[in-house]
Amino acid sequence: MTSESARVRSGRPRLVDRGDDQLDPHDQILAAAAELFAERGYGATTTRAIAEKVGIRQASLYYHFAGKDEILLELLETSVRPSLAYLTDLLRHPDPAVALAALAILDVDTLIATPHNIGTLYLSHEVLEPRFESFRQAREALREAYSELCGRIGTHLDADFLGACCLQLVELVITLRRDGEPPASTAIDIAAACLSVVGVSPPGPALDQGIRVAGELRARLTAQQPGESSATDA
Amino acid sequence: MTSESARVRSGRPRLVDRGDDQLDPHDQILAAAAELFAERGYGATTTRAIAEKVGIRQASLYYHFAGKDEILLELLETSVRPSLAYLTDLLRHPDPAVALAALAILDVDTLIATPHNIGTLYLSHEVLEPRFESFRQAREALREAYSELCGRIGTHLDADFLGACCLQLVELVITLRRDGEPPASTAIDIAAACLSVVGVSPPGPALDQGIRVAGELRARLTAQQPGESSATDA
Repeated sequence: MTSESARVRSGRPRLVDRGDDQLDPHDQILAAAAELFAERGYGATTTRAIAEKVGIRQASLYYHFAGKDEILLELLETSVRPSLAYLTDLLRHPDPAVALAALAILDVDTLIATPHNIGTLYLSHEVLEPRFESFRQAREALREAYSELCGRIGTHLDADFLGACCLQLVELVITLRRDGEPPASTAIDIAAACLSVVGVSPPGPALDQGIRVAGELRARLTAQQPGESSATDA
Repeated sequence: MTSESARVRSGRPRLVDRGDDQLDPHDQILAAAAELFAERGYGATTTRAIAEKVGIRQASLYYHFAGKDEILLELLETSVRPSLAYLTDLLRHPDPAVALAALAILDVDTLIATPHNIGTLYLSHEVLEPRFESFRQAREALREAYSELCGRIGTHLDADFLGACCLQLVELVITLRRDGEPPASTAIDIAAACLSVVGVSPPGPALDQGIRVAGELRARLTAQQPGESSATDA
């Protein structure tokens, strides 16, 4: 398999799929933009090209979004917002190792579900600009949650550093998606790696409970927002 | 500190610094291009802008490089080539945990030394194109070396996955550099995290030996190539 076919395969939703006709125009625009940003880069993609891909007029695109920046911002936030929704529950969990495993699983699922692997744009220079501050703050809140849980697990290592290591391991899935569809076990394997980094040894018991907690939280959030689906739903 | 000032601070070498006058034109072009790629993105940077930044004519730039692609390729390879030079020695080391720690330390040092944090371009869509195949192969060779060492340490987890985790942890330094100068202990902290992920517990003894081995290899390579320097040289 070439990396080109892998990239196309890992992107979703695809506009050529029949399923995409069921997306509302707002989500069709997001999907088309994600595909073009991933293919050509953010700077080289115009709102005209996005509108053409969706099959609408440029003026109609502006009915849904103020411009390209707003589309990228929404895509970036899509890659962190669902995880943030779980934080209150997870930070209240009595066992920080279980909460850490559950957070990593939910977070990997979220990144697997983002259209066209939008996390590849995390390191782009645009994301450093002030207009994307709210995304950076959301991602920082996620990093702080990892660090807080690491600190509570308690090791001799710096909790801030360990939290950054956990988020970095979670984002390995962005690289894996570039090479094709990651195996079904990826979220659990990455959660195990996070527990090992923090020194939870053996990680097995906390991991098993973390899988259960992640499943319960996902079921509850899906029940609240019927339109939302998870990448690891059976 | 704003992220803007942090970005400027973490980039090096800086053309405004007096030290840069001592760079030969080839390296001045690389440094200027790295700065512009990081600021504006690869697509938006022209060879004309690079030449202007160096203070040479565009024609003179083409004397050193065939074009923008060749400059990016050299920058990308600069971020992996020094680490590859250590692989033969490290893969022969009798203790794979020591070799893993040393490789992580040397690799973090290499990434810290790249001008203007060029690793931020690793996820850009251009790097997936065929013309950057040699860089992708070099990075894959590095990933395979991590996986080979992980496999020799021996755990119940998949060695390929663990190798990818180690390279991912090493590349955390790219994110850390975006927020400012990483602390001096970063290379050692990341090496400790790699050992933990692979299940070397406690990582202390292998880490201490890894620091020593990394120092010896760096000294030998520096002696062979007097112009080369390391980010953690005292």
